[in-house]
Amino acid sequence: MQLNAPLDMHLHLRDGEMLENIAKCSAETFSGAIIMPNLVPPVSTKEEVLAYKARIMKAIGEETFEPYMTLFFKPSYDKDFLSSVRDEITALKLYPAGITTNSEGGVSGFDVEELRPTLEAMSELNIPLCVHGETNGFVMDREAEFASIYKRLATAFPKLKIIMEHITTKSSVDLLDKFENLYATITIHHLLITLDDVAGGMLKPHLFCKPIAKRPADRDALLKVALSAHPKVMFGSDSAPHPKHAKESCGCAAGVFTAPIALQLLTELFENQNAPIENLQAFVSGNAQKIYGITPPVKTIVLEKRPFHVPSDYNGVVPMYADEKIAYSIKK
Amino acid sequence: MQLNAPLDMHLHLRDGEMLENIAKCSAETFSGAIIMPNLVPPVSTKEEVLAYKARIMKAIGEETFEPYMTLFFKPSYDKDFLSSVRDEITALKLYPAGITTNSEGGVSGFDVEELRPTLEAMSELNIPLCVHGETNGFVMDREAEFASIYKRLATAFPKLKIIMEHITTKSSVDLLDKFENLYATITIHHLLITLDDVAGGMLKPHLFCKPIAKRPADRDALLKVALSAHPKVMFGSDSAPHPKHAKESCGCAAGVFTAPIALQLLTELFENQNAPIENLQAFVSGNAQKIYGITPPVKTIVLEKRPFHVPSDYNGVVPMYADEKIAYSIKK
Repeated sequence: MQLNAPLDMHLHLRDGEMLENIAKCSAETFSGAIIMPNLVPPVSTKEEVLAYKARIMKAIGEETFEPYMTLFFKPSYDKDFLSSVRDEITALKLYPAGITTNSEGGVSGFDVEELRPTLEAMSELNIPLCVHGETNGFVMDREAEFASIYKRLATAFPKLKIIMEHITTKSSVDLLDKFENLYATITIHHLLITLDDVAGGMLKPHLFCKPIAKRPADRDALLKVALSAHPKVMFGSDSAPHPKHAKESCGCAAGVFTAPIALQLLTELFENQNAPIENLQAFVSGNAQKIYGITPPVKTIVLEKRPFHVPSDYNGVVPMYADEKIAYSIKK
Repeated sequence: MQLNAPLDMHLHLRDGEMLENIAKCSAETFSGAIIMPNLVPPVSTKEEVLAYKARIMKAIGEETFEPYMTLFFKPSYDKDFLSSVRDEITALKLYPAGITTNSEGGVSGFDVEELRPTLEAMSELNIPLCVHGETNGFVMDREAEFASIYKRLATAFPKLKIIMEHITTKSSVDLLDKFENLYATITIHHLLITLDDVAGGMLKPHLFCKPIAKRPADRDALLKVALSAHPKVMFGSDSAPHPKHAKESCGCAAGVFTAPIALQLLTELFENQNAPIENLQAFVSGNAQKIYGITPPVKTIVLEKRPFHVPSDYNGVVPMYADEKIAYSIKK
């Protein structure tokens, strides 16, 4: 079976040596990806966007792959600035301050009037807003608590496309049908695991991410919209590499590295759940093309039902299911 | 200020090299401790109890310290066996099968009639039953789900003293005043942390334990009964050493090592919360003496308000708050 122009609508490629080490993991199997801007310092000028894109293209080499660039959201961006950078970016990414890796410069408080100039300019320029939707509350409640902020933003800026990134809860799923301008990405790991997999047996640092995996009922809600290819949901891996020593240590960084196995796992999941292959095609590409209005590079990935032994690491980054077998392989 | 005959009513001393390495951490500051029987194989005969106690005494050396021994609960124990071992043990410890470290031989299902012969014999011989109260459900619900089993056991065996070990939830606290024969131990770490400390920022393997730390409202309920020295609650550290490599790895073992700093942390906590020192004395000794009917060896521990730099490890075991400063020190 095959997938056409698969897209990863939420990807961390990092920078420097890590970028060099892992960019091809995505470029080999995806046609393009939305590239997160949370570098140190965050990507927040036109020059930084262009320079980062150039470094990505260099790391990718010969592969056909479109990095859809994003800016790190700041309330200080005005319409002139956004107009000047419009052609170079696909979206802006908003982080609440301090909520995850390299998000210290994010937004504190969500005062609509403070955000209005930037968000109205984005509406007019038709630039989507990608949001990491968590409060600083109790870890299991952070995303559900953020629902009120999503509602406030969706109501105040009805023409702004707001993407709820890497949703993990039923409460976020429920928002999709309540607000026309709310969309969502879902990771493969949140379709597969719950907090039980992270901390129910042994503690598993390589399954630790933000937002943390939630309850079985939350996963069921995510599965329902992903497997049915709800037109407002897109695949976004949130694949987030850290060196092995930063994961297996006394303070483990947040992020699950899935880029090289995401399509294989998705194929296995849709098959196991008896979901039609057309739905997978929509979830990993068609929906995103419509929502973002993008036409990705032509690329066809053939998946074979042949066990794949997941490597223990990719250039020092431990993937999900390291050293385990998964059911599908990519045909080279 | 000083504490008389402090008791740790839930302690893992392990065996072999680990026992040799960490037994003194408890013996130096406690007068005695209830010793958990989950060795491999579990402590389940009179000979094993006596031999394990001898190894503990050897590891402790010159310190004054009473190891209150326990047997690993099995439904096959009859009254003759329990009578024969009565003088050597202080309690039996019941583990649901597979629920935590070395619990594979524990109880599956909680059929009252299957358990009746053993539990009635324990009632008649006045042997307390210590219970690890978790189901195999979702990790955040396991203890609350176990409440129905506590109720069933407490009702069916009204003369059996049942100790709810290392309780972590408001639902367990609520049971204390509903059933005359239910008691509880509480750890220092569950009085200090919630799941936010384990997985809300970086993932902290050295704070990972079973039962996992819960919500702020749960911790508040634990604090209320501990700080007020509710007569049915006792301090039990559940100090559970693992080698550093077993904690900082791709699958981290459950257990927080607090033995060498438990009294210092308790003193700081009671002071910060304005709880009277008499309550701390009752929580760390008096209540346990009454509940278990034991008279521990005479020992006085003097605590000074002088910062203590917690070592990075004790013979290869990383303690809670490693490399951090705590407010109280033990006066030597």
